[in-house]
Amino acid sequence: MQHEAAPAAIGEQRRQQAVHGTIAAGVGFPRMKLFDAIFGRRLANREHGDQKIGWLAGVPAMGLDGLGSSSYGPEAALAIMIPAGAASLAWIGWVMVPVVALLAILYLSYRQTVVAYPSNGGAYTVAKENLGINGALLAAAALMIDYVLNVAVGISAGVGALTSSVPALQPYTLWLCLGVLLAVALANLRGTREAGLLFALPTYLFILSFLAIIAVAITRLAFDHGPPHVVIAPPPLGRATQAVGWWLLLRAFAAGCTAMTGVEAVSNGVNAFKEPVVRQAHATLTVICVVLGLLLAGVAYVARGYGLGAMDQTKPGYQSVMSQLAGAVAGHGTIYYAAMASLLAVLCLSANTSFVGFPRLCRLVALDGYLPKAFAVADRRLVFSAGVLFLTVTGGGLLIVFGGITDRLIPLFAIGAFLTFTISQLGMVVHWHRQPGRTAWRLGINALGAATTIVSLVVILAAKFLDGAWIVVLAIPLSVAGLIVIRRYYRRMADRLAAPGDFTADEMEAPTVLVAYEARSRMTDRALRFAMSLSRNVVAVHLLRLSDPDQDEDCRTIREQFEQQVATPLVAQGIEPPRLMLVPAPRRRIHEPLLELVRKLDAATPGRSVAILIPELVLRHWWERPLHGRQAQRLRTALVEHAGPRLMIITSPWRA
Amino acid sequence: MQHEAAPAAIGEQRRQQAVHGTIAAGVGFPRMKLFDAIFGRRLANREHGDQKIGWLAGVPAMGLDGLGSSSYGPEAALAIMIPAGAASLAWIGWVMVPVVALLAILYLSYRQTVVAYPSNGGAYTVAKENLGINGALLAAAALMIDYVLNVAVGISAGVGALTSSVPALQPYTLWLCLGVLLAVALANLRGTREAGLLFALPTYLFILSFLAIIAVAITRLAFDHGPPHVVIAPPPLGRATQAVGWWLLLRAFAAGCTAMTGVEAVSNGVNAFKEPVVRQAHATLTVICVVLGLLLAGVAYVARGYGLGAMDQTKPGYQSVMSQLAGAVAGHGTIYYAAMASLLAVLCLSANTSFVGFPRLCRLVALDGYLPKAFAVADRRLVFSAGVLFLTVTGGGLLIVFGGITDRLIPLFAIGAFLTFTISQLGMVVHWHRQPGRTAWRLGINALGAATTIVSLVVILAAKFLDGAWIVVLAIPLSVAGLIVIRRYYRRMADRLAAPGDFTADEMEAPTVLVAYEARSRMTDRALRFAMSLSRNVVAVHLLRLSDPDQDEDCRTIREQFEQQVATPLVAQGIEPPRLMLVPAPRRRIHEPLLELVRKLDAATPGRSVAILIPELVLRHWWERPLHGRQAQRLRTALVEHAGPRLMIITSPWRA
Repeated sequence: MQHEAAPAAIGEQRRQQAVHGTIAAGVGFPRMKLFDAIFGRRLANREHGDQKIGWLAGVPAMGLDGLGSSSYGPEAALAIMIPAGAASLAWIGWVMVPVVALLAILYLSYRQTVVAYPSNGGAYTVAKENLGINGALLAAAALMIDYVLNVAVGISAGVGALTSSVPALQPYTLWLCLGVLLAVALANLRGTREAGLLFALPTYLFILSFLAIIAVAITRLAFDHGPPHVVIAPPPLGRATQAVGWWLLLRAFAAGCTAMTGVEAVSNGVNAFKEPVVRQAHATLTVICVVLGLLLAGVAYVARGYGLGAMDQTKPGYQSVMSQLAGAVAGHGTIYYAAMASLLAVLCLSANTSFVGFPRLCRLVALDGYLPKAFAVADRRLVFSAGVLFLTVTGGGLLIVFGGITDRLIPLFAIGAFLTFTISQLGMVVHWHRQPGRTAWRLGINALGAATTIVSLVVILAAKFLDGAWIVVLAIPLSVAGLIVIRRYYRRMADRLAAPGDFTADEMEAPTVLVAYEARSRMTDRALRFAMSLSRNVVAVHLLRLSDPDQDEDCRTIREQFEQQVATPLVAQGIEPPRLMLVPAPRRRIHEPLLELVRKLDAATPGRSVAILIPELVLRHWWERPLHGRQAQRLRTALVEHAGPRLMIITSPWRA
Repeated sequence: MQHEAAPAAIGEQRRQQAVHGTIAAGVGFPRMKLFDAIFGRRLANREHGDQKIGWLAGVPAMGLDGLGSSSYGPEAALAIMIPAGAASLAWIGWVMVPVVALLAILYLSYRQTVVAYPSNGGAYTVAKENLGINGALLAAAALMIDYVLNVAVGISAGVGALTSSVPALQPYTLWLCLGVLLAVALANLRGTREAGLLFALPTYLFILSFLAIIAVAITRLAFDHGPPHVVIAPPPLGRATQAVGWWLLLRAFAAGCTAMTGVEAVSNGVNAFKEPVVRQAHATLTVICVVLGLLLAGVAYVARGYGLGAMDQTKPGYQSVMSQLAGAVAGHGTIYYAAMASLLAVLCLSANTSFVGFPRLCRLVALDGYLPKAFAVADRRLVFSAGVLFLTVTGGGLLIVFGGITDRLIPLFAIGAFLTFTISQLGMVVHWHRQPGRTAWRLGINALGAATTIVSLVVILAAKFLDGAWIVVLAIPLSVAGLIVIRRYYRRMADRLAAPGDFTADEMEAPTVLVAYEARSRMTDRALRFAMSLSRNVVAVHLLRLSDPDQDEDCRTIREQFEQQVATPLVAQGIEPPRLMLVPAPRRRIHEPLLELVRKLDAATPGRSVAILIPELVLRHWWERPLHGRQAQRLRTALVEHAGPRLMIITSPWRA
């Protein structure tokens, strides 16, 4: 059988087919060229990229989300403390120390996950294997919401960095956000397989420049006598309108926790590493967490010494904390703009992390039947484009609703991430518990991780509930319910489709074939020949659309032509000719009288089904389309939609 | 045969069908309700409105365009003379007298047209019958451009009236224009058959209020001693920067001629009048022309006495001449707002004249084969919606390009109208020349009409060429060329479709039927049964889309299932079972290997065509759509597009 053909021969066939298709169709060629230029040429299955990476490429590929968070995490904490004025700086250390400690615990926990799941340790998989499907669905919902929020936060923070550097762009914040989103989405529809350097360059530039800036600042703080040397002074902090209290610190901590979103990325993509997988993954995770920890601690320390506070992104003159930091240390020269450009790139690309993770997650969930099948289908570029499009639309919606302002999105952000952390850690605890051998210390680390993330989750929920976290608290169970409903639908559909018992052959008599007939032409000739090859019962049906004064005259002409040119010659050859029937369509919907006719035939000839054959003109050029109605297509669509159980619809294409 | 069925029975069938369709389809119902609410229910052919009207209804139905012009004609002339400052008012009489004289000649000429063509005396018909098809195409192109411009000018002038009354709306001019356009277009897609009162009320309110305002103004001018009483003084005229000369007066005349566009409307719609048709049409024409003449002369006279000049619509504080006039006579009270509201309504509804005339013209041209057939097809509301949509898009385009500013559109406007006048009059001259009997005086009137409109056309062309008329001068021959190209295309297509000689029966052997087969289900069972009723050569083709590690396992399962549940039971019944074929689709385009298979079959079995049968799931609810791919539909589309001459495509719908 065909299946045994060698792959090489298939490839050859495919190339021939492609050439043939282009010539025969005509239409395809010029359109495809533009389309291909934007979205890239179609890829074959065997081109599915299995390019494996080491830790040096792993840091940009999986660390962007985590590293980018360093720019908005501390800023989010400081923004909460704006009402405290200058006192905020005295306390920022008390907020960031637990954040960095939590990061360390997460680092240790995820090292365990990588060891246990060296192919794919995403929260959905870990939860499904250890906590059952309900835990997995909860993780899926939390992760999906987290991915969407990460797109919105990454892009809005990136645009915030841009408008800090070029204040004239500040009024266009939302449009810039949507533009970046569109660019990232398009790049992902093409597929980002070859984008290694594009990711690596800004990532390492970002790490180097900001670590250097922080190092210089710390040196100056340590060695300068009196106040440190400042090139461009940060704007003065506002007057304190509120004292620093427990509640403010808790809320600041909750905001600062957004700096940890993205740490789980390595565990999701372990299978992308080359051998030895676990060591490469551990090295990547280490670099990301150490750099992130240094950045968080450094920013908090320097902010205090230099007096850097958060500002309101909606007001003109907004400067992000990272921009104030770079300006204070290096002035607005080349270094400043290089650092800010790398930050912009890292943040925009951190949105890309979602575009990699979200479609993969959706594919896994769709394969289990909890999301529409379209999410599991690879498109012409082998991208799961349904996921990419869904993410673009929802991310864009969030940006529009929240006006592209990072600060408004932050309260929603950490919930999903920390819920994911918690479920993943709990899953790991169960995993080690089931594992034989000496895994107690591993279980202990994951249990510590689970405990701390649960506590943090409760703190974040309490601190941010009214600021917007309630939206996520509502959205997660609704999403889970949606996933379950989808699965139930597919189950019911599968039950309805299931064929009971063995195949039985009945109604094997050839059907009555009705041919949609306007007037005689090469096209209807072919259609009649097809119909006569299928059955002896062929009826040419001419539908009268408009009640025209000349109608009777027309009817006579059509009848006479059919009689003389079709019926009589066939009778002469001893072949039973098709009948001609003229049917009025009083409301110009030609499928109605056709279906009426089918119903009559069904009643008159039980055991014999009916086929309607529609000749369809296939055009050579795209510009011909407006010159022809889509009547054949419309008739077919209407017939399919209203067809009874014993009707089939046949198209006979005729290339003009 | 079916055609003999009585119409009443058909109606009954149709109703039953409608009920059946709704229940069976499911999908249709909720969607249709909203759709129907916006666009109205589907109408039957017999509902084609043949409601005849008298002159009282005729004036609003056909006079809106002409009457509305009175508001922008004089204003356009005054706008040309802005550089002359106050001197413009001294000369406006010399501009408007020839305009009114020309109107009188046109009135007499069109009386003749109505007599000669009491069913449809549109320029296209008159030219086709008397000047041949080239003249008719020229008239059609000119008319079509005129209709499009009338939409843009009517709406922009109406919005100008609105922003004069409510100056705060001035910055939103373009958006208001587009909003009005959309409203008019939607109303016309519903059909405006029942809109009699909607049209009559503002028309007569407009006529009464402005005739009264002018009468009051003239009385005051005649009887007040010294300067006339003015309630709200019009803004002072600008300083003169230019002397009044011949060139300025000619250009002002050319601009004033826009006041005559729309006079031909009555001749286009004579068949809408009740008996005695010609007298009703004459009465309508008389009312329209007399009122228009009074308004034009009155506005010019009063403008001089009151010192009303044109203003720049792009600048804040813009006041149209009619607004200044109403304000000066009546102040900004109820009378002012009522008059301006009626003016706004008349101008917006004057755009409606185009929406009535343009689709009808396009239908006539399309029936002759010079426009795409879609323009000749009545939609569900018996509206020629292709024409309505085309007019909306082009009119909207013009509004956007010219920013919704009347003054910028005026230079383009009169060319089309006067070219139409000229061709129509020339056609009438030929008509009377061919007519036996004493028609010399009728010929004379039309000859006078033709001569004056030609002279006017030349003046308009010369005066407005650089201001924008060149666009129309380019567009008309291009449109004519487009019409001719379309006709040629249809001719060639008809030649290609024409069947030579008598019908011949060949390749009558039943085709090989390939059934697209995923796994066994009720749906594929039905498809296989259909296929077996059509032919003994049935092959179930399973396409392998993704190169999956589990693929070999899957293949075995599919084979075994087919063997046990389909093939073996059939053999036991003594029926030859279909074969199963597994075919890989390396680039996930499943039509490619299918077509390759068809090519092999074509080569292997000459004389036997091939049919591909695709089972298609028909969903019950609209919300199910995102849950299913459109694979069956896509496969079918690709097959139709790439099909060779011996392939037919069969759909077997299966309602879930």
